[in-house]
Amino acid sequence: MHPILEILSQGEEIITGQTVDTNSAWLAHQSVELGFHVSRHTAVGDNLTDLIKVLTEISQRAACCICTGGLGPTCDDLTTEAVAQAFGLPLLFDEEAFNQITHFYALRNRRMPESNRKQAMLPTSSERLDNEWGTAPGFAVHVNQCWFIFLPGVPTEMRNIFLAHVKAKLVNRFPLQVKTLVTLRTFGIGESEIQQRLHAIQLPDDIQLGFRAAPNEVQVKLVFPADSLPEYIYAHVALYTQELAEFIFAIDGLGKETGDLFETIDACMTQKNLSMAVIETFSQGLIASFCGRGNWLLDAQYHHSIKNLCTKLNVTFQMDNICLLAQELVLAFKVHTDADIILIQLVAGTAEQKRDKHQLLDVHTMLQVQGHFYHHHKALAGDFKNKQHHAACLALDWLRRHI
Amino acid sequence: MHPILEILSQGEEIITGQTVDTNSAWLAHQSVELGFHVSRHTAVGDNLTDLIKVLTEISQRAACCICTGGLGPTCDDLTTEAVAQAFGLPLLFDEEAFNQITHFYALRNRRMPESNRKQAMLPTSSERLDNEWGTAPGFAVHVNQCWFIFLPGVPTEMRNIFLAHVKAKLVNRFPLQVKTLVTLRTFGIGESEIQQRLHAIQLPDDIQLGFRAAPNEVQVKLVFPADSLPEYIYAHVALYTQELAEFIFAIDGLGKETGDLFETIDACMTQKNLSMAVIETFSQGLIASFCGRGNWLLDAQYHHSIKNLCTKLNVTFQMDNICLLAQELVLAFKVHTDADIILIQLVAGTAEQKRDKHQLLDVHTMLQVQGHFYHHHKALAGDFKNKQHHAACLALDWLRRHI
Repeated sequence: MHPILEILSQGEEIITGQTVDTNSAWLAHQSVELGFHVSRHTAVGDNLTDLIKVLTEISQRAACCICTGGLGPTCDDLTTEAVAQAFGLPLLFDEEAFNQITHFYALRNRRMPESNRKQAMLPTSSERLDNEWGTAPGFAVHVNQCWFIFLPGVPTEMRNIFLAHVKAKLVNRFPLQVKTLVTLRTFGIGESEIQQRLHAIQLPDDIQLGFRAAPNEVQVKLVFPADSLPEYIYAHVALYTQELAEFIFAIDGLGKETGDLFETIDACMTQKNLSMAVIETFSQGLIASFCGRGNWLLDAQYHHSIKNLCTKLNVTFQMDNICLLAQELVLAFKVHTDADIILIQLVAGTAEQKRDKHQLLDVHTMLQVQGHFYHHHKALAGDFKNKQHHAACLALDWLRRHI
Repeated sequence: MHPILEILSQGEEIITGQTVDTNSAWLAHQSVELGFHVSRHTAVGDNLTDLIKVLTEISQRAACCICTGGLGPTCDDLTTEAVAQAFGLPLLFDEEAFNQITHFYALRNRRMPESNRKQAMLPTSSERLDNEWGTAPGFAVHVNQCWFIFLPGVPTEMRNIFLAHVKAKLVNRFPLQVKTLVTLRTFGIGESEIQQRLHAIQLPDDIQLGFRAAPNEVQVKLVFPADSLPEYIYAHVALYTQELAEFIFAIDGLGKETGDLFETIDACMTQKNLSMAVIETFSQGLIASFCGRGNWLLDAQYHHSIKNLCTKLNVTFQMDNICLLAQELVLAFKVHTDADIILIQLVAGTAEQKRDKHQLLDVHTMLQVQGHFYHHHKALAGDFKNKQHHAACLALDWLRRHI
């Protein structure tokens, strides 16, 4: 029902870690959406023996394999040669491919280097995949039980050839059934705490449940079978949203998608035509920088010392009642700004508590929205950077909950 | 001479392409630097059969394998179980690991969910690798001809455990000939421009030259043979530093390392006992947030509108001579702060120029250090986020050049 697909990346820059392999993730994502079961990614370097070995293995394991890299004009580009040797498919000169490469150079008023001739040599019985975005054509070839697709490693060329020529061929060739993925995006609750809360919910066997911790969020993923009715999907999603309601800032997969925590807030502030001004202490400009491209953040200040901040805003400095202090600072700050919403962050900890990863730090966030004050307090753990980042996210999540 | 090492990533989010696997590249880079020959990267999903199969294969192929992911507390984290089944090493309860996990929660005033108990179960004969940055301990185990190292998939935890516990063990266990890597870390110049500048320098065959674009820097890498004398290294490094002098903010590999651009500035400001105050417009708090953990950033302000900023500081608004405006704003701002250095960023572009990735944006940075003004102007390209990020880095690099 879900044909097995593997992904193979080839290149010395990938195997030695000089380049992060983004092609594999992109191709995997496309393949899963089409309805394949992606079972394995492999990467090898510019080594003929390694390449031949891995191609042979995959040809016996998968129904389809998408390979990137190694199609360039230089002597360390070995993929075509490896295919020829691994599967006994001698290379043949493809005149149309050669004309396309010549044309590519002519169009740019450049002479084609002799080495590019190599890119027009394709394995016997393979099908050429035209590359209108670069010089190396891709190709597809069927060996043993596996249909192989070879694409250049340059991401733009790879993506363009895939979308223009490969995708439709995959849909035609394989009996694919596209599943529905619904993602609940939460902030303010950990992965294992989510699991505990959801433990009692019984799921039918045909729905898969998964969790994923991403930067600034934890995601709950529900995968529904290809033939699920909308009512079936909504009913099961509702069980989860009820349990996690306050923590969910967005739901992907049911139509409208609002993006990450910051994009969601940005969309909401813009839509409601609200504006904000911020005073940060500990998070040091991070709240402001997370406010994205919207024009709704009118002013933001960072103050190293709460004492100095008090002097500037003419508020009596005291740390005995930090909630009261935050309220007074909000009122004093409000005089200086036209913003609808005021957000002030105060931190009660010492310099040592800020830096020491073994010490908790008390972070207070005070929000004023339409005359109401909302105070939030949390003790944060982790190293300096973690605490700072967390403090900024907390402040913006607190904003999200009150607009 | 170069033992074979493989890298294995585990996780449904990687195999389905929801997450780009950056761990593999990072680990490969570290391993190559240590003197391993990295021959293959593999990724598989949350599937016990696939995991057992790939672990068995690797145990027969490589001398060392570093694995990431699948050590979490949830039911889809299967790596430990797969190791136990693949190699006949039943899981044992590790009391010390359990204490560490309990401690992690206690420190944060949270009760440990019952599911985390699972993370204290380690395969028989394995060696625990303490995780001081999260809950899942790593572990190492020797099977067939291969030494396996299992680390959590969370990048910060993975990196920290690797650097604190794994690196030294690898050096002790394998006959590695560690080459000397010298990295020139530059800002403000592109990769191809660097290549052009360095083109005339002749290198002996035994020195390898490489380039790497990283966030906020471009690195020039020189790899010297294991037996190189210091004079040999210094003489060749000097050829490159002469050519790139103004762009180099740090040199790694010759002893003292100062970290990235921001850490280098932090160290310098702290050492010289200088303080700074900042007004940002376009970069929206990013300059302040990059100023790190030092206490030398006294104040920072973000203003959405230059006009409002002028009103606040009582400076006549005009955009005909933006350099003069910046100077006047510096002088007006200086009255309100005790900081030694003033940094003001002004952007002349329209809202459209900010957002449109096809339009250049004029970014002005004005620095006042010990009575001198230093004005910097650059037209930035790219999408909104890129321009913002670049503008903040430019401002801090401008600071670096004048302290």
